[in-house]
Amino acid sequence: MEKKKVLVTYNMWREGYAELMRKYDVTFPSEGVESFTYDEVLAMIADYDALQSMYDFPVDRRLMDAAPKLKIVSNYAVGYDNIDIPYATERGIQVTNTPDPVTEPTAEQAMGLLLAVSRRISELDRRLRIPGGVKVELLSNLGHTLYGSTLGIIGMGRIGRAFARRAIACGMKIMYHNRHRLDERIERQYGAEYVSLDVLLRNADVVSLNSPHNSETHHMIGEEQLRKMKPTAILINTARGALIDEYALAKALRDGEIWAAGLDVFENGNFPVPELLALDNVVMTPHTGTQTVEVRHEMAAHVSRNIINFFEGGDIDKVNLV
Amino acid sequence: MEKKKVLVTYNMWREGYAELMRKYDVTFPSEGVESFTYDEVLAMIADYDALQSMYDFPVDRRLMDAAPKLKIVSNYAVGYDNIDIPYATERGIQVTNTPDPVTEPTAEQAMGLLLAVSRRISELDRRLRIPGGVKVELLSNLGHTLYGSTLGIIGMGRIGRAFARRAIACGMKIMYHNRHRLDERIERQYGAEYVSLDVLLRNADVVSLNSPHNSETHHMIGEEQLRKMKPTAILINTARGALIDEYALAKALRDGEIWAAGLDVFENGNFPVPELLALDNVVMTPHTGTQTVEVRHEMAAHVSRNIINFFEGGDIDKVNLV
Repeated sequence: MEKKKVLVTYNMWREGYAELMRKYDVTFPSEGVESFTYDEVLAMIADYDALQSMYDFPVDRRLMDAAPKLKIVSNYAVGYDNIDIPYATERGIQVTNTPDPVTEPTAEQAMGLLLAVSRRISELDRRLRIPGGVKVELLSNLGHTLYGSTLGIIGMGRIGRAFARRAIACGMKIMYHNRHRLDERIERQYGAEYVSLDVLLRNADVVSLNSPHNSETHHMIGEEQLRKMKPTAILINTARGALIDEYALAKALRDGEIWAAGLDVFENGNFPVPELLALDNVVMTPHTGTQTVEVRHEMAAHVSRNIINFFEGGDIDKVNLV
Repeated sequence: MEKKKVLVTYNMWREGYAELMRKYDVTFPSEGVESFTYDEVLAMIADYDALQSMYDFPVDRRLMDAAPKLKIVSNYAVGYDNIDIPYATERGIQVTNTPDPVTEPTAEQAMGLLLAVSRRISELDRRLRIPGGVKVELLSNLGHTLYGSTLGIIGMGRIGRAFARRAIACGMKIMYHNRHRLDERIERQYGAEYVSLDVLLRNADVVSLNSPHNSETHHMIGEEQLRKMKPTAILINTARGALIDEYALAKALRDGEIWAAGLDVFENGNFPVPELLALDNVVMTPHTGTQTVEVRHEMAAHVSRNIINFFEGGDIDKVNLV
């Protein structure tokens, strides 16, 4: 029997693909080339049984129409807004994603941003590198202790809970707001109090966004919500940039309406607005919540596993029912 | 009965001293003056029953000889190398310190430095503020996931254990080295494996220093020890600067012998050597491990409580037996 043919759109490290490459005929871009273009994939896809697409590679109607043998699109991401899911379903093409490998690393990023903000680590590291940038005095450079304070999590899903576990070990209390209230058993496990968004914003010392972005959550944190928060509050966003009105946040940080913020995601791709870049009371990373060596290996193993199990039987991370 | 007289050497915020000020006659430096000088205290101390000294205020033989009524020195610090302890003991003067309020904040600083290093948070925040400083690509700006890695703690005391609790919640395994092995019960609680210093250095993904500084621990991390560590290892120091040979560390970081470091303490006071300031794979804070608003209030309440309980009965944090 002929080997199945798998097309991988990105020139990823090979380690995580070892098993896939043993079992199937796998095509990667040539050495030195970062990624296949859309047109290159369009020209090749007719021969392939499986496509391993990156999070930003468009898998649209036109591409699927050119792929009569295609049975599975294994997407390298939790999200899948690069894929026309209804059309894939119509065509009977299975789509899978990779929720597992990103949970713990994203929660780490949230905890890291929170500590970098609360203890002013990034600000002081930056100022230490400027001659005369730091004056050391008993009542200077003061941050805030997290121990004993309250973390308010908006969106208590996988990542929200992984963040809560870390915060509890730091001596924090947990309150949360969710579209649907969690089981009492889970609430007890985290000692988490379910509250309205309004109560959370007014009472939490730290507000963390862990919700998906959609028309209901777009700009869920704007001028009005920032005004409700404590003047000592810290805002953390590792979810989606457009959950926050970034200009309103920059203004609130500049005017001291809230104390500080830590952001891994931005409205405009991977970069913050210039108004934020000028502020000392914000710590920013360019969407590196899952940007680790280990995640790269695990994601590759995970997209491979979804393809192998689809053909040979076993659990896969289904996005659609076909 | 006349009120006891208490001299406070530093013009600290008053909130934490409220109870002390209700009970006794407390003298602070005048408004706008940071601290009494040694000579000022020397001239005044004869009238005082209690001295609340800062961590860097010298309480020596001469000062104590000028203080016939002095019964207690309540030091604002965990350390007390500013005080001539043998002479205080000889004179029957009780010395107290403040171990409690610093434990959790110092462990927070260690966790914060570790995440700022492992996820490159401070480096990326700094580079984002430089036009063109960050290029975003799937295999760029990669940090390391802590989840599943091993933390090696050198000095498993109060702070070491508080750090371990946080690391466990991050999915890390714990190994430790101590002068004396801990009770099996405590080892089980942390899932902590007792190992030799050599085994720890060769196997830990993260090495954290939480030991006191003395002639035995001086430069315990130098060229030889750095060479034993993994090329992917991270070194964290929130204890005392002189535990590390700072020039050897700068060289190891530059040459990639270890991956990165996070430092809150330095050989030369609060500032690193210039060789470290030039490196991207180190995060540095100017000894801010206990530099928070909350610690300032708690320390003041704690030094007050030691004085009140000394005179009225109750637990105190004894440094000497008088």
